Amino acid sequence: MKVEYKNPHVKQMKEDFLYHIGLGTATHNLPEMFGDVKFVCMGGTPNRMEFFANFIMKEIGYKLPPGASLQDISRHSHRYAMFKVGPVLSISHGMGVPSLSILMHEVIKLLAHAGATDPVFFRIGTSGGIGLEGGTVVVSRETIDGRMRPVHETVVLGEQVLRPCVLDEGVTSELVELSESMNFHAVAGKTVCTHDFYEGQGRLDGAFCDYSEADKLDYLRRLNEAGVKNIEMESTAFAALTHAAGVKAAIVCVVLLNRLKGDQISTSKEVMAEWQNRPQKVVAAYIKKHLNLQQKKSEAQAARQKNNLSRFTSYEDQSAMTPTNSICEN
Amino acid sequence: MKVEYKNPHVKQMKEDFLYHIGLGTATHNLPEMFGDVKFVCMGGTPNRMEFFANFIMKEIGYKLPPGASLQDISRHSHRYAMFKVGPVLSISHGMGVPSLSILMHEVIKLLAHAGATDPVFFRIGTSGGIGLEGGTVVVSRETIDGRMRPVHETVVLGEQVLRPCVLDEGVTSELVELSESMNFHAVAGKTVCTHDFYEGQGRLDGAFCDYSEADKLDYLRRLNEAGVKNIEMESTAFAALTHAAGVKAAIVCVVLLNRLKGDQISTSKEVMAEWQNRPQKVVAAYIKKHLNLQQKKSEAQAARQKNNLSRFTSYEDQSAMTPTNSICEN
Repeated sequence: MKVEYKNPHVKQMKEDFLYHIGLGTATHNLPEMFGDVKFVCMGGTPNRMEFFANFIMKEIGYKLPPGASLQDISRHSHRYAMFKVGPVLSISHGMGVPSLSILMHEVIKLLAHAGATDPVFFRIGTSGGIGLEGGTVVVSRETIDGRMRPVHETVVLGEQVLRPCVLDEGVTSELVELSESMNFHAVAGKTVCTHDFYEGQGRLDGAFCDYSEADKLDYLRRLNEAGVKNIEMESTAFAALTHAAGVKAAIVCVVLLNRLKGDQISTSKEVMAEWQNRPQKVVAAYIKKHLNLQQKKSEAQAARQKNNLSRFTSYEDQSAMTPTNSICEN
Repeated sequence: MKVEYKNPHVKQMKEDFLYHIGLGTATHNLPEMFGDVKFVCMGGTPNRMEFFANFIMKEIGYKLPPGASLQDISRHSHRYAMFKVGPVLSISHGMGVPSLSILMHEVIKLLAHAGATDPVFFRIGTSGGIGLEGGTVVVSRETIDGRMRPVHETVVLGEQVLRPCVLDEGVTSELVELSESMNFHAVAGKTVCTHDFYEGQGRLDGAFCDYSEADKLDYLRRLNEAGVKNIEMESTAFAALTHAAGVKAAIVCVVLLNRLKGDQISTSKEVMAEWQNRPQKVVAAYIKKHLNLQQKKSEAQAARQKNNLSRFTSYEDQSAMTPTNSICEN
């Protein structure tokens, strides 16, 4: 199914310029550039998403022409970084719901303008764990806001609007299985999305704090009892806006510390880097698996067509039947 | 007056690592590095804040040793970019309240740990104008949220907290005067802070939109009647958190388009660049003026001390009385 924006006004526009990612319908051939996108991977920093782009390139055996390297497609916007590796987009979303929200609007329109079909969206992130040690992989089954409501609250024309947060159950379960098959300690559960890292997450080490350690622990224990596994800052908007657009989505975060034990992140850079790679590895495994499935389907279909054709025309140039999606081989 | 964090727990901590800006009390000599900061300038993108750092360096006549250039102090965090030019910090805050909020916590603690005194905070930004043409400079007298409340709403330990947004009247008025003296079309008024760029600001060109053009214009006219001059995405948190910390703050934004006339930003890059420089020029003029005032005060004080001293000791090495803050000269 083609990606669709849910906005009748956009259809009337002569041109749509996606300001924050620096791409437009009048300035770029979006179908040619992005029509083949099947996986949209998002994470906080440009650095991490560039790393993921290079990682997934190796994982799926995607080859650039000699002398070419990946380039940030949105570099002129100075807002987000976007890399494309065949059917995979790797994009930084910055920190917090508003930053992610701008990007979601523009990426959904981008894929709709491009005529992309059935993409799966992933958020690959970092988080604070509730009763989980650093390095644990958390796949979100449900996302709730700081007030424990399973909604993305937004304001439209001055009025509060609450949107349901829905993640894809099938993709979520597969990601848990893949994490376990890679011997990562992995759990599925609820994720809390806050709008502040310090007071918003009950930390004792912000510039402001007028609660006690007992208050903090009481709050974190309440989250624990409600099935919360981790806290981050983008999940509700990610789950609500992908759901509103009708695209499949899942969230995989690594835990950087156990919030029941502390607030400060003091793990060494090397260990942190290894932990941060875990969600990337899990999502890469999902992508590889599904590209292989697609490849097998294409091959089977091509074989069927070839058999059918050969009954009637033995002289046809059957190279036209070969799947063109060569990046699927690995 | 020294900058203070309002958190008794931080005083108990052996070490405070400011994770998102990559600086810490145990890893850096913060008083030596940041004790002299008097102006903290914040804006959206790393690119714009690096430009501002180089611009203010020329404006205040700050000289680096031969062979040296400015370097992003927070480059290892991959989150924010921070440049220091003598008493001026130039820092990118990303997009939206949560991203700004993390930075505010860490910069306030940074300045407190450093022993900095009486800094003035500026947000230098871009915005959509209400009845104002592109290029207009808006200095915020008041900030309100998307529901038109003069508060920064946050959630602490699961409970909603509303904080008052207060900007410094004196700095605000001076910035308006300076803008006018530079022949910019400048206005002071209310600024709306939203958590989304598309539906949150009543745009018709997002991925989702279930209201009509008439609904949109009705909303924008209501803002206009309430004295709103522009819409952006960080002002309430900026005004509330600087106020909570007891530091002076002001917001200067340029208008990129008149929202009563449209939604898409299609002005040429060159014109946009010139517009985006206007808030930077206004804040640079403020900084120059106040450094000159400080310089004159220091000189007068030094002269008084010299006169007093010379009555008693004609042989003292009076070079110790020379103001050391050489960057004030320009």
